[in-house]
Amino acid sequence: MGSDPGIDKLIVEFHDRSVRALARTISIVEDGRPGFEEILSRLHRDLGSAHRIGITGAPGVGKSTLVERLVQHYRRLDKTVAVVAVDPTSPFTGGAFLGDRIRMGSVALDSGVYIRSMATRGASGGLAITTREVCDVLDAFGFDRILVETVGAGQSELAIAGAADTAVLVLVPESGDGIQVLKAGVMEIADLYVVNKSDRPGAEQMVTELQGILSIRAEVPTSRGISNPPKWNPPVLRTVATEDEGIEELVNALEEHVEAMRATGVLGQRRKERLIRHTRDVVDRSLKQRVWKASDGQQRIAESVDQVVSGAMSPYQLAELIIEAGLRRVGD
Amino acid sequence: MGSDPGIDKLIVEFHDRSVRALARTISIVEDGRPGFEEILSRLHRDLGSAHRIGITGAPGVGKSTLVERLVQHYRRLDKTVAVVAVDPTSPFTGGAFLGDRIRMGSVALDSGVYIRSMATRGASGGLAITTREVCDVLDAFGFDRILVETVGAGQSELAIAGAADTAVLVLVPESGDGIQVLKAGVMEIADLYVVNKSDRPGAEQMVTELQGILSIRAEVPTSRGISNPPKWNPPVLRTVATEDEGIEELVNALEEHVEAMRATGVLGQRRKERLIRHTRDVVDRSLKQRVWKASDGQQRIAESVDQVVSGAMSPYQLAELIIEAGLRRVGD
Repeated sequence: MGSDPGIDKLIVEFHDRSVRALARTISIVEDGRPGFEEILSRLHRDLGSAHRIGITGAPGVGKSTLVERLVQHYRRLDKTVAVVAVDPTSPFTGGAFLGDRIRMGSVALDSGVYIRSMATRGASGGLAITTREVCDVLDAFGFDRILVETVGAGQSELAIAGAADTAVLVLVPESGDGIQVLKAGVMEIADLYVVNKSDRPGAEQMVTELQGILSIRAEVPTSRGISNPPKWNPPVLRTVATEDEGIEELVNALEEHVEAMRATGVLGQRRKERLIRHTRDVVDRSLKQRVWKASDGQQRIAESVDQVVSGAMSPYQLAELIIEAGLRRVGD
Repeated sequence: MGSDPGIDKLIVEFHDRSVRALARTISIVEDGRPGFEEILSRLHRDLGSAHRIGITGAPGVGKSTLVERLVQHYRRLDKTVAVVAVDPTSPFTGGAFLGDRIRMGSVALDSGVYIRSMATRGASGGLAITTREVCDVLDAFGFDRILVETVGAGQSELAIAGAADTAVLVLVPESGDGIQVLKAGVMEIADLYVVNKSDRPGAEQMVTELQGILSIRAEVPTSRGISNPPKWNPPVLRTVATEDEGIEELVNALEEHVEAMRATGVLGQRRKERLIRHTRDVVDRSLKQRVWKASDGQQRIAESVDQVVSGAMSPYQLAELIIEAGLRRVGD
C-alpha cells in the first residue's frame, strides 16, 4: 500500500481528534472507497481501549430507548460513547427505517457522544465486517464505550453482535416462552440478558424461565465458539428503559463482565479471536474484489447466461472460466 | 473436471430414480465432498420442472404444521413433494433443534414425499448457496414441488427464501402491529402472506393491517431486487393449519402465483436471476477454497497473530501476505 498525501492529512487530523475527520474516515470505510484499507491498517495500533457492547433483539423490544439511557448513564460517569446503529434493512429495500435515530435527541448535541447509523447499502463487503471496521475507527479515535445496536436475531445480526466484547440480548415479557426463544437459536450469543418493559405482566415468569434455561446451559461446555470467562453466569436483568429503571444495574453488570474478562485474560483472548476472524474476512473480501475485476466476470456472466439458462452450460462451468481468467490476470 | 467412475455410477442410479442415490447425492453436496460440483454440473440440464416455494416466519408461528398440511394437499393432487427444512441453528450451536421433524410422521412413509433437514454445520459455503444446491438436486430428481422451510427473518433466512420461485411469509395474530413487521424489514420478500392460527383474537385486524401496508407498497416501484409479475398483489390468506383450514386456498394461491409468473415470463426471469446469483456464489466459494489452501493461510495467521495483537502488524498487512502467496501458488 503506497502512502497517499490525502490519507496522511486525514490521519493527522484524526489523531488531532477532529470530529470532521472522524466522520470522513467512517464514510470512506463504510463505502469501501480507495485507500480505506490503508487507513484502517494505519489506525490498527491505536485499537484496544474501547469496551464494545453489542445490543440485539427483535423489533419493538425497546433497544433504542435502552441505548439512549445507557448513553446518558455513561456520560454521567464521564465516559465518551459511540453508538453504531445497524439498520435492519432487508437486502431488498436498501435502508429506509432509520427514522427512529431522531429519538437520540437528548444526547445528540453532546460532544462526548457520537451516533452513526449504518445501512446495508454501500457496505463494501458484508455488513458484519464493515461494522467491525467502523467500530475499529471509533475505538482508534478514543471512545470509552461503543454500543452496537442491531435489530433481529438472524445469523447476520448475530455475527455483528458476536464481534463485541460483551453481547446483550434484549427481550420483553411477550417474547414468547423459553422454548421458542431457544428455538430461535439466539440463547447462546449473549453475556447478559435484559427483560425490558418489565413492568408488564409476565416479566417475572420470563426472567425465571430464562434463568432456568441458562442454568441448564451452564452445565454443558460452552458452544458459543468464542472464549468465555470461567464461571460467568449470564445474568438476567429487568429494565423499564422509558422510566430509566434498572439501567444503573445494567451498566454495573456490563462493567462486571468486562472486568471478569480482563481479570481472567478472556478479554484479550476474545480480541485475538476477533482479529483472526477479521483477517480472514479481509482476505476473502479483497480476493473477491480483485478476481472479479481481473476476470471481467460480470461481463462473462452477461455473455453466457443464456447458455446457462438453456442448460448448454452449467453455472459450475461458467464459474470455472471466470476463476481461471481471474487468476491468470490478477497478478498483471 | 475429470470424470470419476464413482460419480458416473451415482448419476446413472440417480437418473434411475434411486432414492438411495438421491440421499447420497444430497449428502455429498451438503458436505461439499470431492466431486460435488461435478455432480451438480452434470445435473444442471435436468433442472426447471419443480415449483420452489420458500416458507419463512418466526419460531412458533406454525410453519411446520402448515408445511405438513401443504404436503398432504399436494399428495391428494398427485404431486410429488420434497421438503427442505433449514435449521434455525445459531452459528454457535451447530444444529440441535431438529426434533420437530418427527411431526412429519403422517407423510414420512409416502414414497412421493422426501424430507430433508439441513443444518449450518458442514455447509461447504454459505447456507444459502448449499440450500439452493440441495433444491437443484431435488429438482433434477423430478419432484413437482419443493418446499423450503426456514425459521427467522434475518438476512440469511431471507436470502434462502428469496431463492424460491414463490416466497411465503407466515405470521400469527400476535406477530405485532404492522409497523413492527415493517420494521423487521421482511415485508417485501413475500409473494404471499399467511396469517396462521387465525382462529385467535386479532386475526382480522392483522389481515387488515397487512393489506393496508401492502396496498401502499403496491404504489411504489418494486424494491425486491428480483422480478415480479406485473399486477401481482400479494394476497393475505388466513389459515388454521392444525385444523386444515385455509390450506386448499393457500395451495390455489400458490398455483395462481406460479401461473401468473409463467404467463408473464417472470418465472423464467426469476430463474435466470437465480442462476446469475448462483454462478457468482460458486465463483466466490471456489476461489476462497483454492486460495486459502494454496496460501497455507491458516498457518500464516497462526504464526503472525501475536504480531497483529501487539499492533506490530495490521490484519490488512497479514491479509495481503496471504493473498499474494495464494495467488502466486494457486496455479501450480
